[in-house]
Amino acid sequence: MATIRDVAKHAGVSVATVSRVLNNNGYVNDETRKKVMSSIERLEYQPNELARSLYKRSSKMIGLIVPDIMNPFFPELARAVEDIATRKEYTFVLCNSDDQLVKEQKYFNVLKQKYVDGFIVVTSTLTAEHTNGMNVPIVALDRPIAKHIPSFMVDNYEGAKIAVQHLLDNGCKKIAHIRGPEQVYNAKLRLQGYIDTVSHYPWFNENLIVTGNYNLSLAKEVAIKLLKNNPDVDGIFAGNDVMAIGVIKAAEELGINVPNQLAIVGFDGISLGETTSPTLTTIQQPIYEMGSKATELLIKIIEKDRTLQDDLHVQYPAKLLKRQSTQRKA
Amino acid sequence: MATIRDVAKHAGVSVATVSRVLNNNGYVNDETRKKVMSSIERLEYQPNELARSLYKRSSKMIGLIVPDIMNPFFPELARAVEDIATRKEYTFVLCNSDDQLVKEQKYFNVLKQKYVDGFIVVTSTLTAEHTNGMNVPIVALDRPIAKHIPSFMVDNYEGAKIAVQHLLDNGCKKIAHIRGPEQVYNAKLRLQGYIDTVSHYPWFNENLIVTGNYNLSLAKEVAIKLLKNNPDVDGIFAGNDVMAIGVIKAAEELGINVPNQLAIVGFDGISLGETTSPTLTTIQQPIYEMGSKATELLIKIIEKDRTLQDDLHVQYPAKLLKRQSTQRKA
Repeated sequence: MATIRDVAKHAGVSVATVSRVLNNNGYVNDETRKKVMSSIERLEYQPNELARSLYKRSSKMIGLIVPDIMNPFFPELARAVEDIATRKEYTFVLCNSDDQLVKEQKYFNVLKQKYVDGFIVVTSTLTAEHTNGMNVPIVALDRPIAKHIPSFMVDNYEGAKIAVQHLLDNGCKKIAHIRGPEQVYNAKLRLQGYIDTVSHYPWFNENLIVTGNYNLSLAKEVAIKLLKNNPDVDGIFAGNDVMAIGVIKAAEELGINVPNQLAIVGFDGISLGETTSPTLTTIQQPIYEMGSKATELLIKIIEKDRTLQDDLHVQYPAKLLKRQSTQRKA
Repeated sequence: MATIRDVAKHAGVSVATVSRVLNNNGYVNDETRKKVMSSIERLEYQPNELARSLYKRSSKMIGLIVPDIMNPFFPELARAVEDIATRKEYTFVLCNSDDQLVKEQKYFNVLKQKYVDGFIVVTSTLTAEHTNGMNVPIVALDRPIAKHIPSFMVDNYEGAKIAVQHLLDNGCKKIAHIRGPEQVYNAKLRLQGYIDTVSHYPWFNENLIVTGNYNLSLAKEVAIKLLKNNPDVDGIFAGNDVMAIGVIKAAEELGINVPNQLAIVGFDGISLGETTSPTLTTIQQPIYEMGSKATELLIKIIEKDRTLQDDLHVQYPAKLLKRQSTQRKA
């Protein structure tokens, strides 16, 4: 492999001149620059990127930290982040945190030491306290981190209200909620949307709320218990699509017809919801849009095309996507 | 943040001594070493990893390149790779190639320049020609690259034969095949397994083989056409689970009962196959086992715990996982 010395020798200039051309600093006359560039091309010289990033403290790399790579919501987000990163010539690093602060911090440390230029983070555990002094741009996705960290997310509270209202409009007389993890902010908002829509009904009670942890098998398990203990439940709002699919499987196991005996609404709009039978009615997040806008903003901040603003929190409206799991026969 | 100078000053030794301790080379007496270590701890000194990797030409990072992050098969593989990498204190970088040589080569170049220690690659386009002279350990997963590159994969040919035989054993009288992409090696083996099992039947003809490109929507589309043109087809072997789910959706749209009018077998054993109704009979690959063994081997090679052997190609037996999509009523 050619070295910077080989290039200098081939072009008949000093190593310092080649370095000035490469880093685009200091004066180099046009003719010399052309000579150097043509030698670089001839010798297929590749500047040592690691040495350059050490010098520049930049690596043209961005990291995406997600809590669960196995939930299709996150590969769909990652796809959007990758597309924009690639287009802007950044390398994209995907990290899976299992929603654990320790793992998140390890990724931050390791990647910062490689001069990763910025992070997109989906987190429930990271707070301003952890990100202060990190000295690297961060954009929050799906869940907020702090006031001064830009965030992109859907209107979780309104989305939940729309979901539950849709079940009521479909004639459901007793609606339960399978909620996400206790510590997850969007799960709390979705729960609150459910409570605020149904708490004035006489049938409402706290036993209608069970935790499914955004996990398919656990949601199936708790739904079976719930439906056995409350055979009059005829509608379930699940806090995400993966759990809603768990509920469909639970109903199937109990011989309960979906949607006629039990109507089900999920949340997210992942493509998995089209593959179930019946297909899943859900609250659609603009997954690709959120991922790509977050990435575009992060790269703008990295490249100093825009400065960070305290008020940069984008909230997308939630949309109802009607499919078979709530299409009851009259 | 503390620097190496601060550590030297605190311990009352030279910077060179601290460096010898950090890099574990040259002579340092035990007492001095202890003093340095305690100063490192006290000052919470973090050696500059990037500078160290420049020096050592290593970064404690491994890259996993997959063709399609949206196919759940690959997140399931990635999960296994990440678990082992984390346990061995490597950072794990996930890259999505869209099965394009250009993207694969870009990732190789960018990550090699960051001194990534090794790669696990799922590729259909990379050959010995591309990997020769790369000077970084590579392990192939799911699809082979070259004789001298270790590989972990399932017995695709036998798996396909088992799948088709299972359809015959279930009384299917005319079996079609939705195949994966033309250029993908495992898709060719699965196709060959199908052909070798059915080619002696009088009903066999080439129109029963259609391409679904390992894609759900395309598989659904071609399955609808196939079933309309060949209403007597009563069994379909799909080259992967994602396509098999496309076939289930196609049957649903055409009002064909699965499994009684049409039995379906997929390939992979991703957990998605449990979420469909009916659940999907499939050929199960030991996904987690393959991913973790490949990672363990890669790290052993990186750490020179073992040398590369020409004959290191692990092939796992394929297992039939019977579920509802082939459970016909007698």
